[in-house]
Amino acid sequence: MTAAPQIISETTVRAHCAALLVPSEVFPESRRVDAIALDLGGIPGTRHHGFTRKAGPREPWYVRGMEMRSARQLTIVSVEELPLIAAGMHVPAIEPEWIGANVVLAGIARLSWLPAGTRLIFADATVVVEAQNAPCHISGKSVARHVDPEGRVAGLALEFPKKAQGLRGLVASVERAGTIRAGEDISVKVPRQSVWGA
Amino acid sequence: MTAAPQIISETTVRAHCAALLVPSEVFPESRRVDAIALDLGGIPGTRHHGFTRKAGPREPWYVRGMEMRSARQLTIVSVEELPLIAAGMHVPAIEPEWIGANVVLAGIARLSWLPAGTRLIFADATVVVEAQNAPCHISGKSVARHVDPEGRVAGLALEFPKKAQGLRGLVASVERAGTIRAGEDISVKVPRQSVWGA
Repeated sequence: MTAAPQIISETTVRAHCAALLVPSEVFPESRRVDAIALDLGGIPGTRHHGFTRKAGPREPWYVRGMEMRSARQLTIVSVEELPLIAAGMHVPAIEPEWIGANVVLAGIARLSWLPAGTRLIFADATVVVEAQNAPCHISGKSVARHVDPEGRVAGLALEFPKKAQGLRGLVASVERAGTIRAGEDISVKVPRQSVWGA
Repeated sequence: MTAAPQIISETTVRAHCAALLVPSEVFPESRRVDAIALDLGGIPGTRHHGFTRKAGPREPWYVRGMEMRSARQLTIVSVEELPLIAAGMHVPAIEPEWIGANVVLAGIARLSWLPAGTRLIFADATVVVEAQNAPCHISGKSVARHVDPEGRVAGLALEFPKKAQGLRGLVASVERAGTIRAGEDISVKVPRQSVWGA
């Protein structure tokens, strides 16, 4: 038995829902909407809706296509982190719609590092953080199409997964169903934290 | 923007599945079995099976009975922590079946403090940690019935929620369906850790 862990108390901070987006016709992109009626599976009628999903390239340890628990009903990014990715890639901006984000938050420093179990409490719905999102080359290709449509910068798409590490935001699930609205102020309830060491 | 967080790398440790239990006829108790065939909802046919559950006394901020995301398909305890609860309560032992545990692990120091997102990798199934379990008075009453059936010790049931704080184990969900077996050695994959501070 090792020493007792240092414990950081639960805390609640405020944030602003700057934008909401739902999947568009062009995968992986999304488009802005004023509100989203979430059910417990996420955004009804969309690709990532549901409690389960098929294993893909993010889970090379599972057989491709195996039905598994989904932890990515929603993806969340921040107005603070997207410009940091853009700066790292030497591009003017990265828009949340290019990378398929569903929720854009403002006011949370290092959003991508909120721990699993953090609750985003909207007026009518609650979303729970599952994990940090992992940047993928599909989003990188989308960024490259938008900032460099003529393909002048070699390797730009591959820069995204590198420069977005730790800045790509979060994946989350719906805990309480209801309608979330762009422009809402929300409470972000960060659970008690500690670091486990064997 | 605050300083970058200290990051603790992902790590994998080994553990032993000492026992498996399924709910018994007497709530909240469970009974030992050799194996459990998990599906993505947990243990088929039992009280906590499914992707959603009704809000209860653990969520006083929600309307009682509201359908919400479940994060408690399975409860996991350890052979290291149960005796510590027993010692705190001045009782000889606490058996996992009294408090409705489903999985008893051995070999993990401070099991209750494993972070959300930790994977318990069995040979044929994978379980993902959702949160630390919160001790409740229903389990406390069950402990009291077993160690003090004649009710000689005043307030014993209420001692359980107090002394089990931080020792009550974990709640978890199934990520990969399959059969788990008592006696298996498993891998415990602890994700990259850091502490978020606003």
